Amino acid sequence: MSDQLSGPLAGVTVVDLTIALAGPYATQLLGALGATVIKIENPAGGDPSRNNAPYYGAAGLSLRRGSDEDMSISMLERGRNKLGVTLNLKHPQARDVFADLVRHADVVCENYSAGTADRLGIGYEFTSSVNEQIVYTSISSFGAGTPGKGMDTIFQALSGLMQMSGTSGDPPVRSGVPFGDLTGPLFAVIGTVAALLQRERTGRGQHVDVSLLGALTALAATEPWGTMERAGIEMRTGSTVPRLAPFGIFATSDGHVAVCAPTDAFARGVFAALGRPELGEDERFTTRDARVAHAPALHREIADWAEPLPTEQAVAALERQGVPVAVVRGPEEAVRDPVVRARGETTLLAHPELGPIPESLGSGLPIRFSAATAGYDRPAPRLGEHNDFVYRQILGYGAERLAELRAGGAI
Amino acid sequence: MSDQLSGPLAGVTVVDLTIALAGPYATQLLGALGATVIKIENPAGGDPSRNNAPYYGAAGLSLRRGSDEDMSISMLERGRNKLGVTLNLKHPQARDVFADLVRHADVVCENYSAGTADRLGIGYEFTSSVNEQIVYTSISSFGAGTPGKGMDTIFQALSGLMQMSGTSGDPPVRSGVPFGDLTGPLFAVIGTVAALLQRERTGRGQHVDVSLLGALTALAATEPWGTMERAGIEMRTGSTVPRLAPFGIFATSDGHVAVCAPTDAFARGVFAALGRPELGEDERFTTRDARVAHAPALHREIADWAEPLPTEQAVAALERQGVPVAVVRGPEEAVRDPVVRARGETTLLAHPELGPIPESLGSGLPIRFSAATAGYDRPAPRLGEHNDFVYRQILGYGAERLAELRAGGAI
Repeated sequence: MSDQLSGPLAGVTVVDLTIALAGPYATQLLGALGATVIKIENPAGGDPSRNNAPYYGAAGLSLRRGSDEDMSISMLERGRNKLGVTLNLKHPQARDVFADLVRHADVVCENYSAGTADRLGIGYEFTSSVNEQIVYTSISSFGAGTPGKGMDTIFQALSGLMQMSGTSGDPPVRSGVPFGDLTGPLFAVIGTVAALLQRERTGRGQHVDVSLLGALTALAATEPWGTMERAGIEMRTGSTVPRLAPFGIFATSDGHVAVCAPTDAFARGVFAALGRPELGEDERFTTRDARVAHAPALHREIADWAEPLPTEQAVAALERQGVPVAVVRGPEEAVRDPVVRARGETTLLAHPELGPIPESLGSGLPIRFSAATAGYDRPAPRLGEHNDFVYRQILGYGAERLAELRAGGAI
Repeated sequence: MSDQLSGPLAGVTVVDLTIALAGPYATQLLGALGATVIKIENPAGGDPSRNNAPYYGAAGLSLRRGSDEDMSISMLERGRNKLGVTLNLKHPQARDVFADLVRHADVVCENYSAGTADRLGIGYEFTSSVNEQIVYTSISSFGAGTPGKGMDTIFQALSGLMQMSGTSGDPPVRSGVPFGDLTGPLFAVIGTVAALLQRERTGRGQHVDVSLLGALTALAATEPWGTMERAGIEMRTGSTVPRLAPFGIFATSDGHVAVCAPTDAFARGVFAALGRPELGEDERFTTRDARVAHAPALHREIADWAEPLPTEQAVAALERQGVPVAVVRGPEEAVRDPVVRARGETTLLAHPELGPIPESLGSGLPIRFSAATAGYDRPAPRLGEHNDFVYRQILGYGAERLAELRAGGAI
């Protein structure tokens, strides 16, 4: 594992108890940053993400698992840069093995529902009694110890997010990107690494506790919607922003373009692109306040111009005038952006035996370090693939102990 | 500043050159984690966010600045836990002052457009020549050195996000939460803290480079949409998920509820809540596959039941049956959730002289540490409020030097 030496978190070992999406996303980021992530799975089937359709194997993509070689795309995405180890945490011998792992680790990460980790005997209290330097990170629906079963859509509903998109009076808008499951892990990684840094000073670990609802609510609240609305600023305004014009999404003959041109100079650029420079002299459009007051008329001019044009042509005309403009891309085009690809912000998914999966771009690590390498460089493990490596080489178990654990169903 | 001793980043000093939203959100998080953040602003007006309506002052909220006491809500949100210092970076004496700041700092954070920092003479090369231990974090639209002017809506358009919500064939859906501006800063904080941890090992700083487009694209790509669609899984499915039923958003007499009940047990709970336990025996609804095949009929039953009921009553009926359900809350209700408030995930904004602003809840730090205090405990500074503290007490400048810098317009 010498390639890990160059990641910013090289030397950090994470015991990863997480399953599903939110927890595994946090630990995959720690792995991409160079930590040694030991993913613990129940020997009876492992992380349920292994059973999410679609699968990839020698026969390509399919909705049903065809052979043992097939692995779920979910696991191929979220299992990257992790070592796969089995341990049945309900087995009487499991707690001793867990304690040995903890003695060799810096971080434990879990996303059990409230009370489960303690019931299994692997909660923060036990873990810190084994190793007081452990940073123990809990990712939960509503906060450590707070009961309640959450899912991404539940967090989106409760956080206000669904009432922040669309236009006033519209039904709630669910985001197709599961921000309810994805923003908490980002804060959990921040908390984990910050606690590791604090440990350099204090010599002590601690419990880091992140709620998925809390994380999404906090992020959404960076724009204080209520305060804005009390001040008379309508906030639920669909694809436009009332204080900005020209601004919005416009249909073309084969797609849509986003135009963000609220300054005088940008507005003149828009008029030039439209071949209508005289609109810059039209008193409805000469100042920012005037344009905002006459936004519907202004946006109608742009819409009429864009509608018959191919997207590429509309974007080129606006770009030539220096106007901030963008194609509204679909996800498949977005992940293929050459700059994004070159920076490793998206990356080909790979199967552990079959290698890179043609055309299947997954999430990359969107952080570049000048003095470290980071990113996903190892495919997801098979269930228990690294049992020998972890139990023998890291924990130092002998062959006999390993055989005993295997025979008893502990691993 | 003794209260900072207890934050996980206590002892870390950040020179903050950022303006607008993305950069300042990253540095406000560093401040909430206990770093000493020195926000550098041009003495001629400072961060443009100081001029965003609405404002808050003795007369309350208003769309126009009424007196010098009035401060923008944007700055009251994003300036928290920062020291306010003026420095005109175009002034001939500024580079020496900047170098002195860098000698006393651990982190520099900037979000200039490509080339600007180098043109001002404060790019990574100069900065690291002054202090090789500096972690220099750049947040840019498309990556350090890549030209192009981005805005949140541009990132949303290019990242595929707008084509991931709504239903296939719908126009693009713009998120009201500016995820294009907000996810990059989270990765920037992760990169910054990880680089600080690496520095403990190597003694060297480095350049950390985060692109806002790259961050949003990477986050959205955690679900590999293209791969899913090639496997026959339609992904743009509005408020429903085709593989899950019952699942979705249902209108009530006074709002909406989100129901996520795809398992057999949850489905039976839904039928019990509807007072229609016999639906559990209906062969269209007995298995998960059957429910998915008959999802429209199933969802019609729930919709008809929910429509005349007050939200509270619908939620209570489903909760009694153990079904994962949530009120679709608006932002104002969301930020007032008692658990969220108690955990500090939202927090009252405060004016530096007038104190807490009634009813105005802003973003809190959604990370709880068992052995550290963290969160926003100091209001945004006035422009230059901490010049004396920073220039005299941190840099050790004498009164004469300070007077000279002031007289020459450098600070």
